[in-house]
Amino acid sequence: MPFDKQTGRVACIGAGVIGGGWAAHFLAKGFDVVVWDPHPDAEGALRRLLKLAWPALEELGLAAEASPDRLSFAASLKEAVAAVDFVQESAPERLELKQRLLAELATETPANVVIASSTSGFSITEMARSTHDASRLVVGHPFNPPYLIPLVEVVGGERSETWAVERACAFYQAAGKSVIRLERELPGFIGNRLQDAIWREALHMVAAGEATVEQIDQAIVDGPGLRWALMGPCLTFHLAGGEGGMAHMLDHFGPSLKEPWTRLEAPELTPALRNAMVEGCTQEAASRTIGDLVRERDRGLVAILKALRAGRAGGARATSQTG
Amino acid sequence: MPFDKQTGRVACIGAGVIGGGWAAHFLAKGFDVVVWDPHPDAEGALRRLLKLAWPALEELGLAAEASPDRLSFAASLKEAVAAVDFVQESAPERLELKQRLLAELATETPANVVIASSTSGFSITEMARSTHDASRLVVGHPFNPPYLIPLVEVVGGERSETWAVERACAFYQAAGKSVIRLERELPGFIGNRLQDAIWREALHMVAAGEATVEQIDQAIVDGPGLRWALMGPCLTFHLAGGEGGMAHMLDHFGPSLKEPWTRLEAPELTPALRNAMVEGCTQEAASRTIGDLVRERDRGLVAILKALRAGRAGGARATSQTG
Repeated sequence: MPFDKQTGRVACIGAGVIGGGWAAHFLAKGFDVVVWDPHPDAEGALRRLLKLAWPALEELGLAAEASPDRLSFAASLKEAVAAVDFVQESAPERLELKQRLLAELATETPANVVIASSTSGFSITEMARSTHDASRLVVGHPFNPPYLIPLVEVVGGERSETWAVERACAFYQAAGKSVIRLERELPGFIGNRLQDAIWREALHMVAAGEATVEQIDQAIVDGPGLRWALMGPCLTFHLAGGEGGMAHMLDHFGPSLKEPWTRLEAPELTPALRNAMVEGCTQEAASRTIGDLVRERDRGLVAILKALRAGRAGGARATSQTG
Repeated sequence: MPFDKQTGRVACIGAGVIGGGWAAHFLAKGFDVVVWDPHPDAEGALRRLLKLAWPALEELGLAAEASPDRLSFAASLKEAVAAVDFVQESAPERLELKQRLLAELATETPANVVIASSTSGFSITEMARSTHDASRLVVGHPFNPPYLIPLVEVVGGERSETWAVERACAFYQAAGKSVIRLERELPGFIGNRLQDAIWREALHMVAAGEATVEQIDQAIVDGPGLRWALMGPCLTFHLAGGEGGMAHMLDHFGPSLKEPWTRLEAPELTPALRNAMVEGCTQEAASRTIGDLVRERDRGLVAILKALRAGRAGGARATSQTG
């Protein structure tokens, strides 16, 4: 059952920063969007968000049929989900609120509509506790702002059915997202776990007087952050191994994992872990040689640096040079 | 004593991936570069690296007087540093080798020449043990490739003099780098500490079967990595707090620091740490409101996404979409 953008209709339940960002994204991709949010200023806030986001979305390219006029507001949850193909729940991060809301959403929607929660903190298993039919409940966790950051992490809970997880993935792909499907529930999913590791190290460094907030941000923005917009930490280190790639990296620099470089203790570099890293990089690199990847990285970095420089000339850029 | 690019002459001692990358950078910035590397294929390898890097450097804009012809090779270390203003040492990461090399460099250079080591692992204090005059030895730690990633971390050791650290900072700034000056020696400096936190979490996740290499890279590249090319983790979370910024973020989401989201234990969120984070963000944001920063972020993300998309059309992009 593929999603048809011409007739696709999505309900956004909750229209704060995340829910409103989802609404902007779905509108730009040519969906009808119906919003329900009990906050008295919800409509005003969403219209302001849309006004801010739309020029960016136009610049990136709207779907042919996209229009902010395809946004509507429902007076009740029941009305919002009366005739939609997909529900995106982005209520405040309070467990009992989400439990109540998801139970109501499951009751008010037909048995083929998938309900995805934007939660960043709860598992769908615990959020679905009060829901009679939990088969269609999944997590669809975005990054902020959902209309510009492609990632969405999809995972089902103990009672979610496979077809619902697959349908959520198909829907998000049709909506132009970069989808990661997790095989099992994991606190923090993948992106937040990685992001949180860096955030906790940053907090430790400030607490210990080892670096300032500004130095931490400058170190990332002018350093590894530039590479990470292009290649993740694994492929980045695949290149650090020269022609030998990740295998050379781990075999020669593995011992330095034991250096006290961060507060996070390194795992034992077992042969199984070593091979998983090497095979993962080989698979990700596909037919690209190290030389291909280096050229690709450099081409990408030049493009990013030029884009940032153009932005800076217009008054942008987060960090200043400090001596 | 400001650096004059018209007459500036830099010695690169060691011309592997990092030393050769430094040579490419200094050449593009209009310096004369003299290289010494005892490896029999050093000159060939550096010429290949330059051939690969030069088009990228041309595209970013060369200094008026820049030319690959301003590269020369010395037959000995002594000859290489005979008449230079600055020495960049990028020998293999072996302590006794670096100790011997830095001692020789200090002997062979006049008392006003600063010698910077590219080391990522050793402190200048331990590397300077065998050096009679350690006053001019500093760390100048780049990120790979040094000709595209702006960051350089500068720090002195126990015997380094302040003027040498300041002169290294001034030199790197004249050479177009983004300089972070650390107040004290710190294993891993700042960038590698942060990068290592994410790398160790990634290794743990693969070891535990929680994520694949490809999922980890996709999560970063299509998620927080895009933001980090623009704004570091602190300013990113400053925006996550809405109009209340970092203060709201920490006061309301602080408790979630105790969630078991990564293997790295969070520090106690003391009032002092809370205030350091808030004041750091306020200082970094300078006169920019949250609204200004959101607009800046979105403008930057659009530029980066367009740049990456253009690259992808040409065959680039590190990750594929997976469902």
